[in-house]
Amino acid sequence: MTTDVDAVIAANAELYAAFEEGDVDRMEAIWDEVDDVCCIHPGWPLLRGRARVLRSWSVIMANTNYIQFFLTGVQAVIDADVAVVTCEENILTAVADPDGGLSQSAKVVSTNVFRRRANGWRLWLHHGSPVLAPSEDP
Amino acid sequence: MTTDVDAVIAANAELYAAFEEGDVDRMEAIWDEVDDVCCIHPGWPLLRGRARVLRSWSVIMANTNYIQFFLTGVQAVIDADVAVVTCEENILTAVADPDGGLSQSAKVVSTNVFRRRANGWRLWLHHGSPVLAPSEDP
Repeated sequence: MTTDVDAVIAANAELYAAFEEGDVDRMEAIWDEVDDVCCIHPGWPLLRGRARVLRSWSVIMANTNYIQFFLTGVQAVIDADVAVVTCEENILTAVADPDGGLSQSAKVVSTNVFRRRANGWRLWLHHGSPVLAPSEDP
Repeated sequence: MTTDVDAVIAANAELYAAFEEGDVDRMEAIWDEVDDVCCIHPGWPLLRGRARVLRSWSVIMANTNYIQFFLTGVQAVIDADVAVVTCEENILTAVADPDGGLSQSAKVVSTNVFRRRANGWRLWLHHGSPVLAPSEDP
C-alpha cells in the first residue's frame, strides 16, 4: 500500500499548493466531480456541493495576499477506495490590507477525505478547525 | 442503501447520546477497536490513538454537568465500508461551576467517519469545529 499512501499524501499536498498559488483551476481539479463534496473552513459553517465549495475557495484565495503552509503530522489511512488524511497546518499568512504587510501565524488541524477515481485521488471532504487550546493533552 | 444509511445515522446519533448520558462504556463501544482512530474536539489539537481519544472523552464528560445536542443537517454518504457523516451540532450545555447553573449554547459542525465492521459501524474519526462566522455564504 506504500504507493497508494504516497499518492494520497501527494494529493493532500496539492490542496495546499493550489491554495498557496491561489490557483482556481488547480483547486477545481483537486475536488471530486460530484455534488456531495463538503467543506468546512476554520470557524465556518458547513458548505456542501461542488459549486458552493469552489466558490468559497475562490473568495478566500482572492482575499489572501500571501499564505504558506508547513504541514506536520500528516497521516493517511486507506480503506479500499477511501483515504482519510489528518494533518496540522502551520500557517504563515498576510491578510489583505492596504499595506499588505501584516502577517499572521496560525495553527489549524485538518481532516481531508479522498476518494479513488479513475484519474486519481479526489477530495471529497475538507474540514479545517482552529486550534484554540494551548496543550495537546487533557 | 437505505438500510445502510439508517444504520450509519443511528451510529452517529449514538455518539451524541453517549455524550449526553456521560456514559464511558457506550463511548468506548462507539469507537473502532484500532489504534488509528482520530479525534479533534472543537478548538483542540489533533488526538490520535484509541486510548488517548477515549481518555479525552472521559475528561470532557466528567467536566460536563449537562449537555444536549440538537442535530441538524445530518447527511451520510457511504462508499463501500466507509461512511462519512456531516452534521451541525446545536448544543445546550451547563458548564461545571460551583452553582452549576450557567448554561451556554453553541454551534459546532462535525465530520464523523465510520467503518463497517462485523459488529456494525464503528467511529474512526470525529472532527468537531466551532462555528465562529455568522453567515453561511461567502
